[in-house]
Amino acid sequence: MSSLQAVHNIPEICAQLGITDVVLSPGSRCAPLTIAFARHPAIKVRTVPDERAAAFIGLGLAQTQRRAVALVCTSGTAGLNYAPAVAEAFFQQIPLVVFTADRPPEWIDQLDGQTVRQTDLYGAHAKGSFTFPADTTHADAKWHATRVVSEAIGLAEQFPAGPVQVNIPLREPFYPKAGEELQFEAVKVTRELPGRPQLPANVLAELRAEISGTSRVVVVAGQHPADEALLLALRQFAVAYQVPVVGDLIANLHLPAAPSFDQRLRPLGHQDVFMAVPELGLKEALKPELLITFGQSLISKALKLYLRNARPAQHWHIQSAGVVADTFQSLTKTVRMEPADFFAAVASPSGPLSKKGEPDVNRAESSGSPSPFLERGLGSEAHVAQPDATRVAPRPAPTGPVRLAWPSSGAQLSETEATAKAAYLKPWLAAENWATDFLAEFMQQPNQPFNEFTAIYQCLQRLPNQSALHLANSMAVRYPNILGLPVGHRVEVFANRGTSGIDGCTSTAIGSALAQPARPVVLLTGDVAFFYDRNAFWHNYPTPNLRVILLNNHAGGIFRMIDGPRQQPELEEFFETRQMLRAENTARDFGLRYTAVSSFAELESALPVFFAPESGASLLEITTDSKTNADFFEHYRAMVRTSFSS
Amino acid sequence: MSSLQAVHNIPEICAQLGITDVVLSPGSRCAPLTIAFARHPAIKVRTVPDERAAAFIGLGLAQTQRRAVALVCTSGTAGLNYAPAVAEAFFQQIPLVVFTADRPPEWIDQLDGQTVRQTDLYGAHAKGSFTFPADTTHADAKWHATRVVSEAIGLAEQFPAGPVQVNIPLREPFYPKAGEELQFEAVKVTRELPGRPQLPANVLAELRAEISGTSRVVVVAGQHPADEALLLALRQFAVAYQVPVVGDLIANLHLPAAPSFDQRLRPLGHQDVFMAVPELGLKEALKPELLITFGQSLISKALKLYLRNARPAQHWHIQSAGVVADTFQSLTKTVRMEPADFFAAVASPSGPLSKKGEPDVNRAESSGSPSPFLERGLGSEAHVAQPDATRVAPRPAPTGPVRLAWPSSGAQLSETEATAKAAYLKPWLAAENWATDFLAEFMQQPNQPFNEFTAIYQCLQRLPNQSALHLANSMAVRYPNILGLPVGHRVEVFANRGTSGIDGCTSTAIGSALAQPARPVVLLTGDVAFFYDRNAFWHNYPTPNLRVILLNNHAGGIFRMIDGPRQQPELEEFFETRQMLRAENTARDFGLRYTAVSSFAELESALPVFFAPESGASLLEITTDSKTNADFFEHYRAMVRTSFSS
Repeated sequence: MSSLQAVHNIPEICAQLGITDVVLSPGSRCAPLTIAFARHPAIKVRTVPDERAAAFIGLGLAQTQRRAVALVCTSGTAGLNYAPAVAEAFFQQIPLVVFTADRPPEWIDQLDGQTVRQTDLYGAHAKGSFTFPADTTHADAKWHATRVVSEAIGLAEQFPAGPVQVNIPLREPFYPKAGEELQFEAVKVTRELPGRPQLPANVLAELRAEISGTSRVVVVAGQHPADEALLLALRQFAVAYQVPVVGDLIANLHLPAAPSFDQRLRPLGHQDVFMAVPELGLKEALKPELLITFGQSLISKALKLYLRNARPAQHWHIQSAGVVADTFQSLTKTVRMEPADFFAAVASPSGPLSKKGEPDVNRAESSGSPSPFLERGLGSEAHVAQPDATRVAPRPAPTGPVRLAWPSSGAQLSETEATAKAAYLKPWLAAENWATDFLAEFMQQPNQPFNEFTAIYQCLQRLPNQSALHLANSMAVRYPNILGLPVGHRVEVFANRGTSGIDGCTSTAIGSALAQPARPVVLLTGDVAFFYDRNAFWHNYPTPNLRVILLNNHAGGIFRMIDGPRQQPELEEFFETRQMLRAENTARDFGLRYTAVSSFAELESALPVFFAPESGASLLEITTDSKTNADFFEHYRAMVRTSFSS
Repeated sequence: MSSLQAVHNIPEICAQLGITDVVLSPGSRCAPLTIAFARHPAIKVRTVPDERAAAFIGLGLAQTQRRAVALVCTSGTAGLNYAPAVAEAFFQQIPLVVFTADRPPEWIDQLDGQTVRQTDLYGAHAKGSFTFPADTTHADAKWHATRVVSEAIGLAEQFPAGPVQVNIPLREPFYPKAGEELQFEAVKVTRELPGRPQLPANVLAELRAEISGTSRVVVVAGQHPADEALLLALRQFAVAYQVPVVGDLIANLHLPAAPSFDQRLRPLGHQDVFMAVPELGLKEALKPELLITFGQSLISKALKLYLRNARPAQHWHIQSAGVVADTFQSLTKTVRMEPADFFAAVASPSGPLSKKGEPDVNRAESSGSPSPFLERGLGSEAHVAQPDATRVAPRPAPTGPVRLAWPSSGAQLSETEATAKAAYLKPWLAAENWATDFLAEFMQQPNQPFNEFTAIYQCLQRLPNQSALHLANSMAVRYPNILGLPVGHRVEVFANRGTSGIDGCTSTAIGSALAQPARPVVLLTGDVAFFYDRNAFWHNYPTPNLRVILLNNHAGGIFRMIDGPRQQPELEEFFETRQMLRAENTARDFGLRYTAVSSFAELESALPVFFAPESGASLLEITTDSKTNADFFEHYRAMVRTSFSS
């Protein structure tokens, strides 16, 4: 039996524990892993030479598939190039199992090539760091080898999910003899069966009473993957308690919930607009006594600062396990439940209603399909943008309590309670309505100079239904969070907001495109993020469903938008970093269909072709002027400040 | 006084401690550092958006200037993109001072953007990790702030030099008011005055006796920067004791030493050739009893494996401080001296003779000029390749003891000792002579298919005198180590052999080109390394002295050269990683003068223009076929195996 048998068994353990996708980067030391993964029939292996891009592609695959993806690299700095994606995975809670090939321990620091100190390579940014035994001839060592891989995968997937490292010391020879068959042995794996925490009935009853008895309750969602059970539970909760629910785009609350709901209580999303209004009366009216949050980070800085300043008496954060952030400096309760379970349980004593009429208690089991929102076999119809008229949503009525649409509810609001709740709900709904109207009017004003804010609005209006929308960091995520998405579209939104880096946004979108070839994957990115991560395209795997919208203002335009840098003499050289690249050569290098536009008319005529399914992998470069963008955005901000009337 | 005064003082401390160059990457959190560095009159700041490239550019600057360079980045994953260069700096012993801007400690893990766990970000790959105080209002905290920066720079530069991190928590506001003058206060810094260790006279006398009394002594040099004092001392030692000195290209022993030396004892460099000869008689004849080494890693795997296998009774490594590797599993003595001091002291009891006639004991002080080998103001003459005929070196005479050319020597070899030494020296010189002749004949054989091995030979023959030659990792460093450089040229050789990564070879060369604009900087690289690090070019700083020779075989061709992967069915997809990029679009993007060649004739006619000083930054793409390269290299190896006769 080969001395590498324990290494050859790694893909078998991965496969048994549900890993289907591996991204590897070529190298010599990792050869036994490469060969074993490549020959395993149940695993799809892709090779990407730049490890930084490879790791973000793996992250995109895992983010979309909602299960762990394995990375394989050789020894030396290869694994260090994974570090940005590993940190993003850690904070975005994406399961990655990182196999780093290494020299055996006796050869570390002995001046051999491609040798660094790989033990615990990711420090505080990995959930765990395992060392595979260097010698597996002893039976106990072989058991240890299997156990380590099994434990690592289990740890990566346990909530909160994240990255783990398995460092694998390897001695030569690395290669089977020519023609030699690799064996995958029967291995014992340990499976994780995740439980979902529930609160005792009396505690739930107390929480219900607190929510009922508190006039000013608001729910704010942080980043969260699209989750139909959660949407249903949130609607149920919002209707039962007449509570406003607020979420950024990356909270994915904009996805349409069951049509039986009263659409007037759909989640609010224009907080970036109405929170920028300087009117103190509005700010006072929205002030919560009880803030309920779930999910990860917020994009909306205006909302975050408002809530920090508002200092609610109570802040409950709903998170089933793990360290909880005190984002608003007001945290008073950590509720250890899944958000979907919590909202359903509090709204309805009989438990959450899922589509099947029973609690969807095992999300891990149901995660086999790429996304709960993906309907496979999208025809061309799904790609065709609908006229705006079809997207007008029912307007929330800003007066009186909203009628309960949910059949049975655990909330029994007294008349006083209901009146108080309605009084608090009203200004939230009014603010959202005002923002919706304001934006619609503002974005369509005539004679605008060509600018990226309006150009993005135009793109978002034409976005294919059922798309996955990836937003790169910096302005590319901020603009759409202001604008929102057309109502009624099933567009799932992704962004690397774990660390908010620009370093792997394109690679992540490519991982997403590879994971769901039947769905349009649209990346909206700025020029700095785009050129930073150009090696995302440097591999041999086609992504005909990928559409990249590149906002090229030849600079880190965000620095011209914010007070501070724009007043400094260093603005252009040291903050904006003027860069003169256009994407045409990159598109040519990687076979992307390329279109450049620099006017609204060109953009309007380019979009239908760009989004058409038969166009294949395409890049739309929207060239704007950084100063014009800043001026127009300043104009927008001035209008927000002066237009509001309650 | 600004609450940021302690931060604004950082550039002043850097300047006082000799740092002249800073590479920064734009960001918001690092704004106070950006502004302070940009406004400091004694510091040259360059901005590079991709932090991975930025850090390697900084490494190239530091490697060339032989003093610390500072890096500045914003919070989040920015600093993680430095990790590959930090590891390379750690193992190559290059001083880097890494300033990472951070949120203040209370905001870590609170879901704010661009926030990771930055304390000790580089783990085992930094010499130290310092935390700048978050609040410097207390006088002691301000003293602490100054001290931390001073200590960090001192630690980075102490031998063995390396990277250090200074994490700088910053609270808003970041920016001075418009038009506000920044003050740099008078700061107290602590200077390091490095001492050089000397051994007691009686210990030196014992070492001299051991060397004299041992018949079979060989000196093997690892990677080392060009160092004239060391070259002189080595020649003195070699002549005094009649000892062969062997060095790879990256040991920089090929640089011409004082002409008064007997050229027959110049260091040997063709070990990659003669160590590949399978003849056991030769291997036996070269076997050392005492191996003396200095410097870092070897490229020559053949030599390394030979020495491991030879197991000399004694192995002394000369290194003044720091952990010492037992590369050949034979280490018996660690001599704590600078190699130049050691060889001079052992060769001559009166101490080393430098050009000034006295020991050059303070390398730190003499490092003000970019390189001891750089003669400023190179005219076009320096760029013009000389005809091959002028480069024929005097042949070492393989018989009889070489006459001592050094005026006074500490070595008093007895006649018996001298005869024994000559008997051991003879096969080394013979092997080197044979290899030199073999290569000259082999490389000029007619009717070769176009292949990269011969193409590189052609390029190296035409290399401008006084160049800095950067060798990317993988085959780009291996071929020239086989071929050697034309004799008599003052070409300094660099390679990132600390970790042997391909991730920053181009960026390092660009840092080198920026550091010495009057000198031609030539990068020899393969396609995978080149495209991996394309963002090296993505900035606004011209490098008219840069020449990039790109060997494009559309794959990681090294995998076709080595037994193991080339027998596997996974070769093309998972090892070679076929990639179809050509560099023309990259050259267009970054304004590099581009020439493509695919025959010896085209190459020969392209080289004079390519190397001409007026050509400006240029890229020469040599396209070859990976299979042809492998076949030709196999042919070369077969010829080596069968051609040797002693």
